[in-house]
Amino acid sequence: TMNACRKTILVAGGAGYIGSHTVVELLNAGHRVVVVDNLSNSQENLSLVFFFNLEGAINGRNLILVTKNVCDLERLNLVFDSYNIDVVFDFSGRKAVGESTLLPMLYYKYNINGTMNLLKCMRQHEVRDILFSSSCTVYGAPDQEALPIKEDDSVGCCQCPYAKCKYFVECLLSDLATGEPDYWRIMVMRYFNPVGAHESGLIGEDPKGDPLNLLPKLAQVATGKRPILDVYGEDYSTVDGSPIRDYVHVMDVATAHLRAVKHFQDISGIEIYNIGTGEGKSTWDMVKAFEAACGKPIPFRVCQRRPGDVPAIYCDPSKAERELGWKAGRSLKQMCEDLWRFYVLNPNGYDESI
Amino acid sequence: TMNACRKTILVAGGAGYIGSHTVVELLNAGHRVVVVDNLSNSQENLSLVFFFNLEGAINGRNLILVTKNVCDLERLNLVFDSYNIDVVFDFSGRKAVGESTLLPMLYYKYNINGTMNLLKCMRQHEVRDILFSSSCTVYGAPDQEALPIKEDDSVGCCQCPYAKCKYFVECLLSDLATGEPDYWRIMVMRYFNPVGAHESGLIGEDPKGDPLNLLPKLAQVATGKRPILDVYGEDYSTVDGSPIRDYVHVMDVATAHLRAVKHFQDISGIEIYNIGTGEGKSTWDMVKAFEAACGKPIPFRVCQRRPGDVPAIYCDPSKAERELGWKAGRSLKQMCEDLWRFYVLNPNGYDESI
Repeated sequence: TMNACRKTILVAGGAGYIGSHTVVELLNAGHRVVVVDNLSNSQENLSLVFFFNLEGAINGRNLILVTKNVCDLERLNLVFDSYNIDVVFDFSGRKAVGESTLLPMLYYKYNINGTMNLLKCMRQHEVRDILFSSSCTVYGAPDQEALPIKEDDSVGCCQCPYAKCKYFVECLLSDLATGEPDYWRIMVMRYFNPVGAHESGLIGEDPKGDPLNLLPKLAQVATGKRPILDVYGEDYSTVDGSPIRDYVHVMDVATAHLRAVKHFQDISGIEIYNIGTGEGKSTWDMVKAFEAACGKPIPFRVCQRRPGDVPAIYCDPSKAERELGWKAGRSLKQMCEDLWRFYVLNPNGYDESI
Repeated sequence: TMNACRKTILVAGGAGYIGSHTVVELLNAGHRVVVVDNLSNSQENLSLVFFFNLEGAINGRNLILVTKNVCDLERLNLVFDSYNIDVVFDFSGRKAVGESTLLPMLYYKYNINGTMNLLKCMRQHEVRDILFSSSCTVYGAPDQEALPIKEDDSVGCCQCPYAKCKYFVECLLSDLATGEPDYWRIMVMRYFNPVGAHESGLIGEDPKGDPLNLLPKLAQVATGKRPILDVYGEDYSTVDGSPIRDYVHVMDVATAHLRAVKHFQDISGIEIYNIGTGEGKSTWDMVKAFEAACGKPIPFRVCQRRPGDVPAIYCDPSKAERELGWKAGRSLKQMCEDLWRFYVLNPNGYDESI
């Protein structure tokens, strides 16, 4: 029955982009969710609250929102004292690659300490199950011959503090698992390029400042907030000359986490999973799909390549399929349509809805 | 004049092995030293106090001992408030490779946070100059063809949490320097195998528990505390079949730090230095030198190789010679004689002198 499988899941950073979409899936599946989030990306955070207010999808008792920073160990311990936590999902930390280069201390401080505090509280409260949100950026610039990337390919040659911190936490988790393999049940998810939004259009991603990623930029051009799409390089050695990435629908990512809840019982120590579709799509593929979704042509200009951009990166997600029974099923079309719906409903991001 | 060059140097971990020998050199050169050390390796710590009491080498006003943990940010800030710090030497953190594998959280917590707190206080108090104690372990198991190791050879393939934390802090420092190259003046010292003791025999290294390193083991056999020396492998592809390491006298290491004080003014961003002799010496070389120093034969038995041991590792220290004007001058003979003097004067380590 549902109740036997019902878990209490502490979701650190549960009001962020991937976190909030995951929380929706966890609640829909009947789990109890304790979100710990300091609302530092408040636009995204509030969305979660709005979503549940508007939809009435959940019973208030199933969702607890603790507006604290995971770096506050004392408060975090109180959360563990107050709720009988079974599982920790760690989406905490800052996530802007560019910002991380400008303000490295912020990243080394918050993106490592938050997770360490969670682990400390877990050990103290005899919680064993943690899923850590990592990133394909830990692979650095992979050898193009070695694609698709597998979980045991080499990592650590990261180029920005954001990616280095992800790598460091992976090392810490791996060392913990080595030290106490019978205690810890750790999953690391390396996301490739999560895009799209919840199909309701009520929650999505509203990046602050100048977004670096293709899809938010496409949406900004389509809504008139950005005059033109800059395409960085059209002479890569790829099928159509533009860079190839592994875009994956954020709701597929959320589903992977739902599968993970049941999978902890089969883990001993640590397991790492690539979370992507396994299919590389080009910039032009995405532009075309987005034009179809929004019904407008997207003006673009071709610029110079950006330093550090690789021609292609996409993963082998077969381990996740084999062990979690998970496969990303949503198409490029769905990613674009769902993202566009979010932008149509929230033309000024979350600012307007407040 | 001396006074114009006199600096106030905060030495974190200044009561440890390399720290205490460096403090002696700094004081002898007329600098003011603020040691911040929580005395967690109290045997070594107290030695420093004894040394100065016995020798009367310094005026009490030149040495301040703050028995606090650098991980206590509030207290550390008070130290920066109280003394006009010019330079920070960071020897803080735990240093047992074996322990780090058993208790990784301790290392990830203390060996990263202490340095981050120092950097935070420095930024707040407009201190720019920091020297960080790293280790040759960041090079992992180097390609034997690539010896001697240079500073820009690849790092990060470390095998234990101790080494990984050194690597992480190096990354953090490098990212800080990238973010604010006009602010920071950072030196990273990668020590090879520091051995020996102060020529007075009053301070040295008194490793707790079972020492992993060759020289303390040799001394234990010579004093009768250990029945026999275990030699791990005699069939390496080296000149005499035993492993080759780059042993460097701890007082040479201390001198490198003294040179560094003057060199900060020439640094912009970050510079990394190998601290070794550049000469590989074999286990048998060291056994012979130690037998000569202590005047006794050292019984030994040959055991299996230890996993992870490389045949040879030694550095190219020419960058330090070129830029710091530093070269390790003390011989294997001096390393062994000075270490032996320390053991003769302190047959039970520091325990007896307390």
